[in-house]
Amino acid sequence: MKVQLGARSYDILIGRGVMHGAGRTISARLPKARLAIITDETVARLHLERFRDGLDAAGIGHVCLPVPAGERSKSFPVFQSLCEQVLDARLERGDAILAFGGGVVGDLAGFVAASVRRGMSFIQVPTTLLAQVDSSVGGKTGINAPQGKNLIGAFHQPALVLADTALLDTLPDRDFRAGYAEVVKYGLLGDAAFFEWLEVNRQGVFRGGAERDEAVARSCQAKADVVAADELEGGRRALLNLGHTFGHALEAAVDYHTERLVHGEGVAIGIMLAFEFSARLGLLPDLDVGRVKHHLTGAGLPTRLSDIPGQLPPVDVLMDSIAQDKKVSRGELTFILVRGIGQAFVERGVDPAAVRAFLEEKLTQ
Amino acid sequence: MKVQLGARSYDILIGRGVMHGAGRTISARLPKARLAIITDETVARLHLERFRDGLDAAGIGHVCLPVPAGERSKSFPVFQSLCEQVLDARLERGDAILAFGGGVVGDLAGFVAASVRRGMSFIQVPTTLLAQVDSSVGGKTGINAPQGKNLIGAFHQPALVLADTALLDTLPDRDFRAGYAEVVKYGLLGDAAFFEWLEVNRQGVFRGGAERDEAVARSCQAKADVVAADELEGGRRALLNLGHTFGHALEAAVDYHTERLVHGEGVAIGIMLAFEFSARLGLLPDLDVGRVKHHLTGAGLPTRLSDIPGQLPPVDVLMDSIAQDKKVSRGELTFILVRGIGQAFVERGVDPAAVRAFLEEKLTQ
Ligand SMILES: NC(=O)c1ccc[n+]([C@@H]2O[C@H](COP(=O)([O-])OP(=O)(O)OC[C@H]3O[C@@H](n4cnc5c(N)ncnc54)[C@H](O)[C@@H]3O)[C@@H](O)[C@H]2O)c1
Ligand SMILES: NC(=O)c1ccc[n+]([C@@H]2O[C@H](COP(=O)([O-])OP(=O)(O)OC[C@H]3O[C@@H](n4cnc5c(N)ncnc54)[C@H](O)[C@@H]3O)[C@@H](O)[C@H]2O)c1
Ligand SMILES: [Zn+2]
Ligand SMILES: [Zn+2]
Repeated sequence: MKVQLGARSYDILIGRGVMHGAGRTISARLPKARLAIITDETVARLHLERFRDGLDAAGIGHVCLPVPAGERSKSFPVFQSLCEQVLDARLERGDAILAFGGGVVGDLAGFVAASVRRGMSFIQVPTTLLAQVDSSVGGKTGINAPQGKNLIGAFHQPALVLADTALLDTLPDRDFRAGYAEVVKYGLLGDAAFFEWLEVNRQGVFRGGAERDEAVARSCQAKADVVAADELEGGRRALLNLGHTFGHALEAAVDYHTERLVHGEGVAIGIMLAFEFSARLGLLPDLDVGRVKHHLTGAGLPTRLSDIPGQLPPVDVLMDSIAQDKKVSRGELTFILVRGIGQAFVERGVDPAAVRAFLEEKLTQ
Repeated sequence: MKVQLGARSYDILIGRGVMHGAGRTISARLPKARLAIITDETVARLHLERFRDGLDAAGIGHVCLPVPAGERSKSFPVFQSLCEQVLDARLERGDAILAFGGGVVGDLAGFVAASVRRGMSFIQVPTTLLAQVDSSVGGKTGINAPQGKNLIGAFHQPALVLADTALLDTLPDRDFRAGYAEVVKYGLLGDAAFFEWLEVNRQGVFRGGAERDEAVARSCQAKADVVAADELEGGRRALLNLGHTFGHALEAAVDYHTERLVHGEGVAIGIMLAFEFSARLGLLPDLDVGRVKHHLTGAGLPTRLSDIPGQLPPVDVLMDSIAQDKKVSRGELTFILVRGIGQAFVERGVDPAAVRAFLEEKLTQ
């Protein structure tokens, strides 16, 4: 699969075992490059040794820079420390940063790659479902600020994405489910047929095998198409944010404590809120809302604010986060709303009072 | 004057008093944008009030974020704090970061603009000679790492550059001289006629008036031409680094303490070293070396390692910095050398032993 971006086009290789060819695949594209592998401690423990063996066999020099697992590594201090470690390892401009992990590692490593020496080559080897279907493709990188998620970062496209679906065999159920929320998102935002396919094949996707590979490939293709059409998110790409304005506010509300909420769970609840809010505005029948809810709960995903353990902050705090979202401009709230399954659209100038009232009600349910 | 970069083209307005039209000029290009003005405490004291008055008159909302004056503000902690302050001020993607200061403020503010919300509009109002003729044009932004200068950053082009040469009237002599080293650089690297013009008009440039404006305009034009031809420094743009590989190593050697050495002084010494090293390699006559030295010393610029007050580190430390320079690739040293005045070229594979022996000798002179 290829992401078409002119001189910055790149390949995505998907399938069981593609990781084992990594050495050769990388050498062919970046001859003589040395690598700094940014990974998290969990992924390192499970998969790093085998991955390094492959690089050694291909004669690719590398250093490993592990960070603690979890969202809180997407922070300024970790970013700074990684930049300095890459410089200490004497990587040069022609060398590459490789992200070996989930979306956290990918976003963090991508921002490091964008910034060290004003831009180094970048390779993604995503190891979570979420990263394979979403975050590893498209070039968005970044870290979180106290003011909100992903508020500091860069657009920096990878030179190559290697999505080995066998790596997902060790992924905890909860993280697999979270990634599945992003898979469902592609159906809901623009491909009703894919959503129907998921309604039939969900269990196959969770079990692994051919259905899983197909779901990963279709999701990646959907993302690659949108990114190729709109690299810097001037228009259509914004649809990928379905569920994310609400979702990001919820992640901020739990202070990125992944024991309470991980990104994909926030997205699942956010998608439900976007559907319910759209229905409230009379945009789509309640029937569609029910169908989405049924599918997400069937997958074991949370769909209500009350599914988040612990106390949520008052509505003002949530509204504040929403107002800090990158999609806000000139004080106008922009949301991705839906006219039906597979029919998302960008709505500018959404009335903050309506959103507030809606959230207030949901907070008490 | 225009920098031709397709969709990212931008205007540079140069002259006495252009700052006073800033409000209108900015409104015309970025209607309704709010500004975060990043400046340093010295510039703020001298010029900020008048500048803000102009913005107020044009109805442009803005916040001011001053940082301490000097190179040491180009650091991770200051970068982080500025990013967070911009977010706290609730600037959105359509708003802009404005750099009001010298190269330090420009580099720092540019990296903030590149990173907050993955890229905000950026305006440069350079207030030093160096910034007006060099750093404000071309889109290189960044901060320093313990490992060396400008090692963390981004390419981020401004939407507008306003170079008000009247602002230079308050610039301390030492900083004016330092900026003048970059002016001389343009002549030495590719325009012998401009160097000859400077030999005749140097005093006029220092006094102010028409010669100064002309020197700023010719320098900007030279930079804009090179940048338009090679935005990301794949080739020709590297010539702008004449004197900078040595110069950066010297700045690192004094740990960026500007009491001992400022950037432009490092460049002046670096240019001399590049000429002397080239002469040593038999590339150009000693006569040319003498002519450059005469011009730089006449301008009150340092030209020898021993002109730097205090003790310099041993040659190993300097060689280490040189090896960390962004221009290094695959362990090969790349230098900008000269075949004569106005005839710089990129030399790859320079023998480290020759550089080392040369520096060792210079350290004892
Ligand atoms: N850049 C983008 O376009 C984009 C898109 C969507 C999400 N994101 C970001 O992605 C992040 C979420 O990504 P994520 O869900 O992958 O989180 P993650 O990277 O934290 O991974 C989830 C957990 O799974 C573990 N893990 C990873 N691979 C494993 C494996 N093969 N086996 C066992 N455990 C494994 C990790 O250690 C972690 O504990 C968020 O920060 C989100 O903002 C970015
Ligand atoms: N991005 C690029 O392409 C590029 C090119 C060349 C240099 N640089 C960077 O630029 C920096 C050096 O720039 P600089 O020499 O402008 O340093 P600077 O920004 O530190 O300014 C020098 C001093 O002059 C003061 N000052 C600024 N304007 C003044 C005014 N109008 N009146 C009185 N005082 C004033 C400042 O407070 C400071 O003390 C270095 O960090 C260098 O790496 C970047
Ligand atoms: Zn997401
Ligand atoms: Zn310079």
